[in-house]
Amino acid sequence: MLKEGDFIYLYNDKATYMIPFQKNYCFSTHKGNIRFPEELEFGDKLITNMGDEFYILKPTLADYMMKVKRRTTIIYPKEAGTIILELAISSGKRVIEIGTGSGSLSLLLSSLVGESGKIYSFERREEHLENAKKNVKKFGFGNNIEYFLKDPLAEGGFGVEEIDSIFIDVPAPWTLVECAWQALSNGGHIGFLSPNIEQVQKTAEELHKVGFARIRCMEILSRGIRIKKNLTRPFDRMIGHTGYLLFAQKVKKGNAELDFSI
Amino acid sequence: MLKEGDFIYLYNDKATYMIPFQKNYCFSTHKGNIRFPEELEFGDKLITNMGDEFYILKPTLADYMMKVKRRTTIIYPKEAGTIILELAISSGKRVIEIGTGSGSLSLLLSSLVGESGKIYSFERREEHLENAKKNVKKFGFGNNIEYFLKDPLAEGGFGVEEIDSIFIDVPAPWTLVECAWQALSNGGHIGFLSPNIEQVQKTAEELHKVGFARIRCMEILSRGIRIKKNLTRPFDRMIGHTGYLLFAQKVKKGNAELDFSI
Amino acid sequence: MLKEGDFIYLYNDKATYMIPFQKNYCFSTHKGNIRFPEELEFGDKLITNMGDEFYILKPTLADYMMKVKRRTTIIYPKEAGTIILELAISSGKRVIEIGTGSGSLSLLLSSLVGESGKIYSFERREEHLENAKKNVKKFGFGNNIEYFLKDPLAEGGFGVEEIDSIFIDVPAPWTLVECAWQALSNGGHIGFLSPNIEQVQKTAEELHKVGFARIRCMEILSRGIRIKKNLTRPFDRMIGHTGYLLFAQKVKKGNAELDFSI
Amino acid sequence: MLKEGDFIYLYNDKATYMIPFQKNYCFSTHKGNIRFPEELEFGDKLITNMGDEFYILKPTLADYMMKVKRRTTIIYPKEAGTIILELAISSGKRVIEIGTGSGSLSLLLSSLVGESGKIYSFERREEHLENAKKNVKKFGFGNNIEYFLKDPLAEGGFGVEEIDSIFIDVPAPWTLVECAWQALSNGGHIGFLSPNIEQVQKTAEELHKVGFARIRCMEILSRGIRIKKNLTRPFDRMIGHTGYLLFAQKVKKGNAELDFSI
Repeated sequence: MLKEGDFIYLYNDKATYMIPFQKNYCFSTHKGNIRFPEELEFGDKLITNMGDEFYILKPTLADYMMKVKRRTTIIYPKEAGTIILELAISSGKRVIEIGTGSGSLSLLLSSLVGESGKIYSFERREEHLENAKKNVKKFGFGNNIEYFLKDPLAEGGFGVEEIDSIFIDVPAPWTLVECAWQALSNGGHIGFLSPNIEQVQKTAEELHKVGFARIRCMEILSRGIRIKKNLTRPFDRMIGHTGYLLFAQKVKKGNAELDFSI
Repeated sequence: MLKEGDFIYLYNDKATYMIPFQKNYCFSTHKGNIRFPEELEFGDKLITNMGDEFYILKPTLADYMMKVKRRTTIIYPKEAGTIILELAISSGKRVIEIGTGSGSLSLLLSSLVGESGKIYSFERREEHLENAKKNVKKFGFGNNIEYFLKDPLAEGGFGVEEIDSIFIDVPAPWTLVECAWQALSNGGHIGFLSPNIEQVQKTAEELHKVGFARIRCMEILSRGIRIKKNLTRPFDRMIGHTGYLLFAQKVKKGNAELDFSI
Repeated sequence: MLKEGDFIYLYNDKATYMIPFQKNYCFSTHKGNIRFPEELEFGDKLITNMGDEFYILKPTLADYMMKVKRRTTIIYPKEAGTIILELAISSGKRVIEIGTGSGSLSLLLSSLVGESGKIYSFERREEHLENAKKNVKKFGFGNNIEYFLKDPLAEGGFGVEEIDSIFIDVPAPWTLVECAWQALSNGGHIGFLSPNIEQVQKTAEELHKVGFARIRCMEILSRGIRIKKNLTRPFDRMIGHTGYLLFAQKVKKGNAELDFSI
Repeated sequence: MLKEGDFIYLYNDKATYMIPFQKNYCFSTHKGNIRFPEELEFGDKLITNMGDEFYILKPTLADYMMKVKRRTTIIYPKEAGTIILELAISSGKRVIEIGTGSGSLSLLLSSLVGESGKIYSFERREEHLENAKKNVKKFGFGNNIEYFLKDPLAEGGFGVEEIDSIFIDVPAPWTLVECAWQALSNGGHIGFLSPNIEQVQKTAEELHKVGFARIRCMEILSRGIRIKKNLTRPFDRMIGHTGYLLFAQKVKKGNAELDFSI
C-alpha cells in the first residue's frame, strides 16, 4: 500500500505527472480530475471524471530528473547515465557539481553516493539555488548534499579537498579547471557538459595545460522507437543535440599527455 | 599511496590495461615492460623499457565493465547508463539480472545497490557463470550478488519475490515475461537489451499481454569526438548498433494499456 | 536580369518563399509586403514595408522539392540524393515512380533524366495526381513525364517494359514487386522508401522470392550544424526518421541470392 | 546482350568488382577465377572455379564513385547526393570542382550535367590529376570535363565566369572563397566538404565577409540495416564521420546577412 507522501508517476501515453500520494486528494490533469482513494498501490489505474485512464507507477531515476521544476536547462538522463559511469559515481564517493542549476543531476548524484557519500553543489545565482534545493528535497533526496551559493573562481577555489569526482556545467568551464585540479584527489575524475564546441576546445586545452590526462569527448544520442504491430519505426522527431561531454583524469603537474597535441 | 591489490587503469592513447598494483611487479605491455616501484600514486607516469609512457589512473565504472574477461557479448557503458536510470537502480534496491554473461553489468549493479541492496544473477551456462564470478570478484565487487546456475523458465520461475527491478538479456526474452511479472513488486521496473527488432516486437507484445504498461523502446548512440587544434571532428568509425533497449513497468493483471495497440 | 516567370527563392533566416518573378508585383510575406521592381537580379536584397530583408536567390533542387504544395508526405532531399545514386538516375534513363504523391520526387527525376529520358509516374488517387501535375508544371519541369491514374496491381502491371529504374513509395510495396520485375530491364534497379520496418521485411522477402539480388537497406540522417562564433553546435532538434530505403537489382528468375537467408 | 567494354558490377555478399566485359576473359577474384562466356546478360550468375557465385549487375552511380582507383580520400555517395541537390546540379549546368582528387565526384557531375553542361575540374598535384582522368575515362564519363593542373589562388582565380555552382574540397577552403565569388553567376551555389570543424568555421566567416548568404552546414549519416528473418538490425559498425557539408549562395557585395552574427 502507498503511504501518504510517496511519490507517484501518473502515466498515460498523452500526459505524465509526478505527485505525492494523499488520500482523498483531488488532482487536476489536462484530461479532467482524479480523486485519490483511501488505499492505492503501484500498478493500479485511476480514471478522471472525463474518462481518461492514468497508471499509478513507481518513478524511475530519469523521471525525477525530468520532473524538477525548471529555471535552467537541465541535465538529461541520456547524458546523466554516461556521466555516472565515466565519473565513477557510486556509494561513498565525494563529488563536486557546479552549477546546481535546477537540481536534476544533484538528486541523481545524491541518490547514488548514498549516506556514506557527499555532494558539494555550487551555484552562483540565489534564485536557482533555492529552486534546486526545493526540487531535491521535495522528491526525498539531498541529505548528503551541501549547497554553496558561491563563485569558486572569485573566492579562491572550491574550499574542499581530496574529491573523487567533479562535474562542471557552466558557460565558461575552462576557468574552473585549475580550481578543480586543486580540489581533486590524485587520479580523480572530471567531467563537463557544454553545448558549444568552442567551449570544449578551450576546456580541453586548459585541461592539458593544468595537468589532466585521458582527455576524451563524446556526444550521446537517444533515439526512441515506436513498437506497434506493422507500424514499428523510430519516432519522427528526436533531440539532435543537448551538449558535448568531456572527461579527463587528474595527473601530477608536469605529467602532460605528450600525444595530445593541442 | 596505492596499496597492494588496488586496481590501476594503465593508460596511454595506444593501449590500456587494468591490473592490480603489486610492488616490484614487472608487467608486460605491447610496448615493452613496466616495473612497478615500491611507492606509486594515481596520477603518476611510468615508462616501459622501450620508452613508452603510461599513466596510472583510477578506473571509471565504465573501465571495469570494459575490462572483464569476455566469453560473451557484454553490456556496454552507453546502454548501462540508461539501464540504471530507467530501472531506478540505487542504494538498497533488490534486482534480478539474467543472463549473467561475462558479469560486466553485474559488477555495475553490485556497485550501485551497495551493502543494503541485493543482486540475483541468473545464468544457464556454467562456464559463463564461473567466468563472470571471477571477473566480478577480481575487481572487488559482488558481496551483494547471489548467483544462480539455473533456467528460470524450466524451473518454475525466479524463486524470489518483491523485486524492484529486473534486467533481461537473453536470446528469447519474451519467454521470461510471465516469470518476471511474478517476481516483481507492484509498479516494478523491467528492462531488456536485444540486438534484433523481432525480439523487441515479440517481447513488447508479451509485456502488453501479461500486465505491463509504459512500454518504451530506444537505442543509444555514442559518438566520440576528437578534440585537437584545427583537427576537431567526430572519429571516423563508430558503433552503429549494439542493441535495442526496451523498458516497462508492472501493473495489475487486466490493466492492459488500452492505447498500446499491438 | 530576371525574366518574368523565373522562380525566385525569397530567403531570410526566419522565412522562405518560392515565387515567380513579376515586375511590380506586390508579394505578402509574414513580415510585411514586398514590391518587385522593374529590374531584379539574383543576389539582390529587397525590404518589406515592415523593414525585413529578403535575399533573391536561385532555388536549389532541394528547394523545389520542399516547396511543392503538399497533399501527401513528400520525399525529402536527404533520401532523394541517395535514391538518385543507387537507382543510377541520369540523362536518358527511363524511370517508373509510384506513387506520384505531391510530385516532389517527380520533378527531381524529370530534371535529371533530361529530354532524352522518360518518367512514368503512377498514382491511384486523382486529387493527388492533379496536385502533383500542377506542382511539377508550375516549377517548369515535367515535359518528359507521362502520368498514369492507375493501380498497376489491379490492371495487370505497369504496361511498360525495359525500364532502367523503378522507385516505389506506397503503403504495401511488396505487392508491386512482381509487376516491377516484369517492367525492368535485366540488372535494372529498384528502390523503396517505407516508414515502417515491417514493410521493409515483407518487401525484402518478396524481392528475394521474385528474383532480385543485392538487397540492401539503409536510413539517412541529416544533422544541421549551427556555425556561429563561440556558439557552434548541432541544432537542438532533428528529424529522427522519415523512412527506410531499400534497394535491389533484377536478376534472372531462379537466380535467388543463396546467402540472403530470409 | 552485353557488348565488349560494358562495365559490370560483379557482386556477391563477400566481394564486389567493377570490370569491363570481355568475351572469354578470365578474371581472378579472391574466391577463384571466373571465365566470361561469349554471351552474357545483366542478371546472370557466374561461378568461380572454387564454387563461389557472382551476380552480373548494372553499376549504380554510387558504384562508379566507390570503384575509382584511390590516391586520395574520395567523396562518398552519402554526401554526393546532398551536394547534387543543394548545388542544383542538372542537365546543362556549368560547374567548377576543386580539387579533382581521385575523380569520384567528377564522374558523377559529368554524368549529371550531360552534353550541354560543362565541368571545370582543378587539381594542384599532377599525379592525382592523371589518376583521376584515367578513372573518369575508364568508366566512360568525362567528355564534358575540362581539367586544370593549377592552383587558382596562385594564378589569379579560376579563369572562368558565370559559373552555376562550385564545389570545393581542399585543406584550406576559405582561401578560395573570393575566387569563387568572382567565378560564380549572381545567386550561384557554392558547397564545401571539410573533415574538421575549424575549416568550416573559417570558411563560413569568409563567406559572410566576401558576399554569400544562406550559409548552412550539415552532416549526413548513413546507417545500414541488415534485413534477415528474426535477425533484423542495424549493422554493428558504421561510418561515424566523413566531413561537414557547408553551402551558401552568392549575393551582391555589401549584401551581408545581417543576422549571421559570426
